[in-house]
Amino acid sequence: MEYILFLYSASLHYKINQSIIIKIIIFFKHVFTYLLSCYNVFKKLNIESRVYMADQFYTMKEAMLYSQRIAQLSKALWKAVEKDWQSWIKPYDLNINEHHILWISYHLKGATISDIAKFGVMHVSTAFNFSKKLEARGLLSFSKRDTDKRNTYVDVTKKGQVLLEEMYDNYHETPHAVLEGSLPIKELYGKFPDFMDVTAVIRNIYGDDFMDIFERSLKNLESTIVAKD
Amino acid sequence: MEYILFLYSASLHYKINQSIIIKIIIFFKHVFTYLLSCYNVFKKLNIESRVYMADQFYTMKEAMLYSQRIAQLSKALWKAVEKDWQSWIKPYDLNINEHHILWISYHLKGATISDIAKFGVMHVSTAFNFSKKLEARGLLSFSKRDTDKRNTYVDVTKKGQVLLEEMYDNYHETPHAVLEGSLPIKELYGKFPDFMDVTAVIRNIYGDDFMDIFERSLKNLESTIVAKD
Repeated sequence: MEYILFLYSASLHYKINQSIIIKIIIFFKHVFTYLLSCYNVFKKLNIESRVYMADQFYTMKEAMLYSQRIAQLSKALWKAVEKDWQSWIKPYDLNINEHHILWISYHLKGATISDIAKFGVMHVSTAFNFSKKLEARGLLSFSKRDTDKRNTYVDVTKKGQVLLEEMYDNYHETPHAVLEGSLPIKELYGKFPDFMDVTAVIRNIYGDDFMDIFERSLKNLESTIVAKD
Repeated sequence: MEYILFLYSASLHYKINQSIIIKIIIFFKHVFTYLLSCYNVFKKLNIESRVYMADQFYTMKEAMLYSQRIAQLSKALWKAVEKDWQSWIKPYDLNINEHHILWISYHLKGATISDIAKFGVMHVSTAFNFSKKLEARGLLSFSKRDTDKRNTYVDVTKKGQVLLEEMYDNYHETPHAVLEGSLPIKELYGKFPDFMDVTAVIRNIYGDDFMDIFERSLKNLESTIVAKD
């Protein structure tokens, strides 16, 4: 303020056009107001960015712990599942991918290679190559469908069906550590665990159509077993 | 009974020493009693085994559906975890087993090869071979401990620690589909899923000591992150 008064008195002293001085004063006032608002915005942004950082940092710790937990759990679970699966299919000279392809084609009542790749969580080339091997063994057949000329479908042959059904019949001949390890939960709650949170995470990662295929194949398996009763 | 009386009368007839005959009779009585008890046990077992079979048969359908569900879910989850993990460690020229070995040795503050194999769910030879490779890169060191002369311990070197901490710092540089896929659960419940049922199944399969190591390593990770704050 003193500065403005000084300028004003200086203008009186030097007899400069007072209206110009007033314009200069107004100009500086605008500049000052602008700088002040800039400073306030900057200050606010800075606070927000610190809050954001704190938030992010807190989440980072949680995220890290969660990621390590799920990594460890899912590795341990999958390794146990894999071991059970391998010992079940070993007598039939199949690997897990081959059995999974047969399983998917059987329960979806025919599937495209991309269905198999998606639902079997394997690369398209893996799905194709193993399907070709299964075709060579007479367990799968490739065909076009009238309703969908663009895609090639794989279907389980009669020989493949017989093999799969034989495998289901002999399911309990091999050890199933995962099943055994789930029995205390069945005893406690009267049913096997349904892994709601894992299912939700997988739905978010792989999408609704993945889960639809999943439920469809389980329903088909259920009706197959009921039919056999 | 008639047979015993016949034997007795026969002994009188042929004037055989009666005390021997009585011993023989007692012996046969014991044999008969033993056979009868065997038959009863067998009959009981047979009934029980039929009950068990009926029980088993009902459970077989449930068991089959459950096994297929967990196989599919755990494969999908592990493949997503594996993909995230690989993209995180790729810039550091490590594979998942190598990083897992470093991670275990770091968070357990030194570990034996069998600790690593057990907790990392890998074969002992895999744990040993990759540990040797990490030693050659100066990231791990092998040593004996005064408190336990029999086992060889691996510890993360200073260089290894720096590498691991750099990896933690750059954790958010790569995509984490599993973390992203879990955020809606965090939003809904205010925390990340804790996978209680998966944890219980894994505890039953791998035992309490596996879970103890698991919790210990997560606690150490937590305090490491807090210390960095």
